[in-house]
Amino acid sequence: MHPTPLYRQLANHYLDAIRSGTLKTGERFPSIRLMMEKHAVSLSTAVQVCRELEDYGVLEARPRSGNYIRQPDTLPKPAVTTTPAPLDTEVYLGIHEQVSSVLKASQRATVKVNFASAYCAPELYPLKILQDHMSKALRQDQKLLGATGPTCGNIELRNILARRALTAKANLSAEKMVITNGATEAINLALRAVTHPGDTVAVESPTFYGLLQILESLNLRVLEVPATAHSGINLFALEQLLQGPDRIRALIVIPNLQNPLGSIMPDAHKARLVQLCAEHGTVLIEDDTYGDLVDTEQPLSTLKHWDRTDNVIYCASLNKTLAPGIRLGWISAGQWHDRVEMLKHTQSRGCEALSQLAVSAFMKTPSYERYLRRLRKTLTQQRQQMSAAITRYFPPGTRITHPRGGTLLWVELPAEQASMAFFHAALKVGIQILPGDIFSNAQRFSHFVRIGCGAPYSPKIDEALATLGQLLKNQS
Amino acid sequence: MHPTPLYRQLANHYLDAIRSGTLKTGERFPSIRLMMEKHAVSLSTAVQVCRELEDYGVLEARPRSGNYIRQPDTLPKPAVTTTPAPLDTEVYLGIHEQVSSVLKASQRATVKVNFASAYCAPELYPLKILQDHMSKALRQDQKLLGATGPTCGNIELRNILARRALTAKANLSAEKMVITNGATEAINLALRAVTHPGDTVAVESPTFYGLLQILESLNLRVLEVPATAHSGINLFALEQLLQGPDRIRALIVIPNLQNPLGSIMPDAHKARLVQLCAEHGTVLIEDDTYGDLVDTEQPLSTLKHWDRTDNVIYCASLNKTLAPGIRLGWISAGQWHDRVEMLKHTQSRGCEALSQLAVSAFMKTPSYERYLRRLRKTLTQQRQQMSAAITRYFPPGTRITHPRGGTLLWVELPAEQASMAFFHAALKVGIQILPGDIFSNAQRFSHFVRIGCGAPYSPKIDEALATLGQLLKNQS
Repeated sequence: MHPTPLYRQLANHYLDAIRSGTLKTGERFPSIRLMMEKHAVSLSTAVQVCRELEDYGVLEARPRSGNYIRQPDTLPKPAVTTTPAPLDTEVYLGIHEQVSSVLKASQRATVKVNFASAYCAPELYPLKILQDHMSKALRQDQKLLGATGPTCGNIELRNILARRALTAKANLSAEKMVITNGATEAINLALRAVTHPGDTVAVESPTFYGLLQILESLNLRVLEVPATAHSGINLFALEQLLQGPDRIRALIVIPNLQNPLGSIMPDAHKARLVQLCAEHGTVLIEDDTYGDLVDTEQPLSTLKHWDRTDNVIYCASLNKTLAPGIRLGWISAGQWHDRVEMLKHTQSRGCEALSQLAVSAFMKTPSYERYLRRLRKTLTQQRQQMSAAITRYFPPGTRITHPRGGTLLWVELPAEQASMAFFHAALKVGIQILPGDIFSNAQRFSHFVRIGCGAPYSPKIDEALATLGQLLKNQS
Repeated sequence: MHPTPLYRQLANHYLDAIRSGTLKTGERFPSIRLMMEKHAVSLSTAVQVCRELEDYGVLEARPRSGNYIRQPDTLPKPAVTTTPAPLDTEVYLGIHEQVSSVLKASQRATVKVNFASAYCAPELYPLKILQDHMSKALRQDQKLLGATGPTCGNIELRNILARRALTAKANLSAEKMVITNGATEAINLALRAVTHPGDTVAVESPTFYGLLQILESLNLRVLEVPATAHSGINLFALEQLLQGPDRIRALIVIPNLQNPLGSIMPDAHKARLVQLCAEHGTVLIEDDTYGDLVDTEQPLSTLKHWDRTDNVIYCASLNKTLAPGIRLGWISAGQWHDRVEMLKHTQSRGCEALSQLAVSAFMKTPSYERYLRRLRKTLTQQRQQMSAAITRYFPPGTRITHPRGGTLLWVELPAEQASMAFFHAALKVGIQILPGDIFSNAQRFSHFVRIGCGAPYSPKIDEALATLGQLLKNQS
């Protein structure tokens, strides 16, 4: 086991004091200098302690005054959503009506600039390389289509994925891995393996609307746990919920480059999260689809890396990093592997061979890592350019996340701006964005929008962002 | 509406008499000559009436004595299977343990001759043509992998499938069709759209073990309705069940070339089945995967063809007729289309494009129908050769079906032969068959085996069948 770092020990010490009422709401928190003296720690440790407590939502920095204890229950309350149960299968209810209506409105519109997608522009993907590998595989094996594949998928691909994960991320076994139709199917299988209809599953809030749709389609109750762009899920809020009366059967977390927040959980949080879930019998389902897009040379740890009790189900996908047209994800379900394999078999059988062969052929060459490095660099530049333009064009009071990778910006508009009206106004002029409303079942993000930075910056994009800014100014 | 044919009208007349007790069990049934006189009908009509009543299980032919009324409840009883509920997700239960153990035993063995598969031998499929179409599609669109496809699948393919269905089979709309990962996913979606866990779903008995696995994985109760190789599901038994206290939410039927029976439902039965289900509020799920393998120039009608109330969900697949390595099925769910589309979106998103493009390119040429005609002819020859060899080599008392198409023979061994022991003995000498036990949850077919005729007849196959015959003789 890793020893708990000093700053975490101190943060826990203060958290206990807040929980027990020793430190009260509104009370001034010891200054950095006082903490340094009192605990004989360095400046950086003292600062880390405050940062940690801020992440937990219990410390509030007041400019030119210092840090104050904040009432944890002034945090946004976790929201429980119950899908209409029993689901009336005679009538189409739609899952998360709002998502459907947003997606359908977008499909009907003539979109000139699409900021709604989480994908990169096609030209950033190694499409030609992958298509060439496909053609080669078709030439090499004239009977490629003559046989069904194994339920768990191509073993070479599973070996490559397991070997890559080893570098820093997690110890996944190729034998206990199942290749799926994207992360969507992986998360479906994880949920079907460990939950029953009616169970409660927690998610980060905001979270990827696709997860909310999956949960609703499986008749699961959703519990939304606040998360921040700085460090992801709020562990303090989560801990309170886990200690509450409702049994939380599973928790789905995107630890690296959360969608839409772009947050990256610090290692200490990851370790603590894994421990918390294990202690409370809550299965932790990790979606690592965006991990490879973190702009860093050293891959970040996954939740699975911190898993000592085989309580984390790891899911990921290649369609954001390699090609939108390739629907390959994978799941490593540990103790639930046999059940997941059975469910995959009865749900859709093994995936087709060709994509798996092409991806394997590319991923085993050094050009794959080179490609990823280049992609990350390109995306960083695109995010910076988009970010600067939004700052320039959007009204004062707009706040933007600065994620350390990926394609997504989470933009908080001035409070009076309704993102749904903004979405429709933008669509009318051919610009597609995603309103914050669909990232929660609880109408919490109705002045947020998600803006994708997948396309290289261009005058057309610049103009579209200027138009968006103008729309907002007109709207207010 | 089609008028009810004369023989059906007469059969109904006698069925009513049996139901009401006017004709009693053990009573002699009017002779063919008497019927001809009494009803002023032709010889062939009178014979058809008797045949029909035999199919219903209410008439028994005693050699050199005539036809006698048979007690319908001496029919094999429908069996209800309940999966352990609530399903213990902590432990891997396996769905239908027997299927898993049979499939796993086969995977571990060194198989020299495989009679377990329902597929044709690879050389019978147009693999090269399809692979060439794939290569061409990859060359033509350099950005093929650069975009995700629509949830419902490629619209050209859907149009082709709808147009083909029109010829005789069913009026399917391309707009209300979803391309799936094989029929497996199609049937999953159909069941998820219309049932809740715990609901009762009826199937034919015997039926394809894959359906039993799907039902178990969805926590559905299974009701097995007897079926015969001659005309499929026993409508008399079904009618009794539908009138019983249990609500049957859905019924899954393979009307053309049932797996494993090879039965083809007569049109009158199809019409009556559709009507029965509509009357009782039971959704009829049709699996038409094998329909194109019926050895006839004129395509047979589907259940959907007889559907007047939009109560039939049509599912099919191309992987038996075109290529095992292509996982493309489709579902036409009528009133439940929106819900099925939503479930497909949340379960696995739209299928990859390449297979759909290649299949479309092939299916729109006249060579597709030519290929199917040739395939059917080849399979008929293979079935006849296999059938003759089984008659030659297997012990007296063995009975074989004579399906009008497809790759499957359902072989009833002499009653004392245990098919599970036979399966293991055969596997030991490298020959794979499927024991009847796995085609029911109720141990009804433990002296049946399913033997696939997908491969061209050869001395190796002949020798393997001789070996099987010898094993049976040794075993008894």
